[in-house]
Amino acid sequence: MPHAFVLELVSPEGRNPLHPGLYAHGLFFALLKKLDPNLASKVHAAQRKPFTLAAFNHKHSLHLRFTTLNDELFAPLLKTLLHESVGGLRLGDQSLVLQRVLATPQGHRLAGQQTWAQLCNQPALRQMHLRFLSPTVFTTSKADKRTRHTPLPDPLLVIKSLLRSWQIHSPWAYSELNAAALQSVFELDLELVGFSELSCQKTFAGKAQYSGFVGDARFHLHSDSIEVQQALGRLSAYAFYSGVGAKTTYGLGCCHTPP
Amino acid sequence: MPHAFVLELVSPEGRNPLHPGLYAHGLFFALLKKLDPNLASKVHAAQRKPFTLAAFNHKHSLHLRFTTLNDELFAPLLKTLLHESVGGLRLGDQSLVLQRVLATPQGHRLAGQQTWAQLCNQPALRQMHLRFLSPTVFTTSKADKRTRHTPLPDPLLVIKSLLRSWQIHSPWAYSELNAAALQSVFELDLELVGFSELSCQKTFAGKAQYSGFVGDARFHLHSDSIEVQQALGRLSAYAFYSGVGAKTTYGLGCCHTPP
Repeated sequence: MPHAFVLELVSPEGRNPLHPGLYAHGLFFALLKKLDPNLASKVHAAQRKPFTLAAFNHKHSLHLRFTTLNDELFAPLLKTLLHESVGGLRLGDQSLVLQRVLATPQGHRLAGQQTWAQLCNQPALRQMHLRFLSPTVFTTSKADKRTRHTPLPDPLLVIKSLLRSWQIHSPWAYSELNAAALQSVFELDLELVGFSELSCQKTFAGKAQYSGFVGDARFHLHSDSIEVQQALGRLSAYAFYSGVGAKTTYGLGCCHTPP
Repeated sequence: MPHAFVLELVSPEGRNPLHPGLYAHGLFFALLKKLDPNLASKVHAAQRKPFTLAAFNHKHSLHLRFTTLNDELFAPLLKTLLHESVGGLRLGDQSLVLQRVLATPQGHRLAGQQTWAQLCNQPALRQMHLRFLSPTVFTTSKADKRTRHTPLPDPLLVIKSLLRSWQIHSPWAYSELNAAALQSVFELDLELVGFSELSCQKTFAGKAQYSGFVGDARFHLHSDSIEVQQALGRLSAYAFYSGVGAKTTYGLGCCHTPP
């Protein structure tokens, strides 16, 4: 089942790392390798990775959020993390001290867990409200190997990203035909009806710099189909774990439904 | 040749009208009808109207901006305007006093004129920077008569809107084949690389309320084709007169290239 947990890290030097998302990606694989080199290779080779991460700088600490979409990953990862953190966690040129692990919504609004069955049984939705907390961008590649990016909360790009991830990671994936049908209806009937505090931020992820958007976006589903509304309910709840768009394993695309 | 001019209007009651774009649309056609009923019917019936308008509230005045894309419209319209304004210009439930007509960039940053030849001879561009001053939205209708709207500075929607208007109003329209080729290249190679101060605003236009965006957007053209870069130069300059997106005759889609 999908898990989200937050590490509260403190720099003994009193300065947060410059590219925490980038370093956290390295930390994640370093830990996984210690835990199980085969699993690390498998996760590294996966085209759609079964985890996401995001880093948020606070005044006196760095909040590192991990989500896992794969049942075999969460427990061993957390165990290794706690074990390794005794000597400090390496992020870039610093060793950070782990102060707390927050794994419940009571501890941190970005932590929590839901079973796949719980996600499947979400109420049907006509309105989806997502708050994008870390820069979010879509890779909208074109013909002839042109790599293009779209840093906008385009409804179809958002929902396609969620549906694609659901199809890969959920044990309750839709049949190929149903997924195609859902996507067609979303293309016709999901509309961006408003946004607020939308801003564009540049950030490093992997080898390149990306422009992404943060802020709130509200979508309305015009379709009267209860199946499509149920899918929107599932995907809207799933977004908390899967993130949205490109480079979610480097700190991009972290979002939630605001209270 | 395309013209843009700004009327500075003052309310004798010290309050600006609530829906100036809506009322200005009515004022425009009332003036045109007085001037030439046949021309008014012709303009009203045109699917792509040869004018735009936008209204901006200032502390002590209302700035009403008109652009004309059609040579036969500008001079007679302005003449009628000046003639009729003696008794006050009717906007909604008020009669506003015309203080000044600003028709040059020196008088107002949103006023000016360029010949079609000048627009054609704009320098080739790789970067287009547009500031959307009034709410901008695209009608992105779908199958089965679904009317959908997109309130985002999507590069393809922006450039398609400009190219479509150019093809209708410019005496130097591209051949059908060239226009299709341009659009294909823009679809592949025009990318939104950043935006700032983007916000979503609701506004009345015609019979309905629309959500539109205002703010700055910067686009980059990846294509090395000089023809495509020239087209971007033309369309970027033309945007000042044509506006972008839906309901430009009701106050939406007013934009310019900031200095």
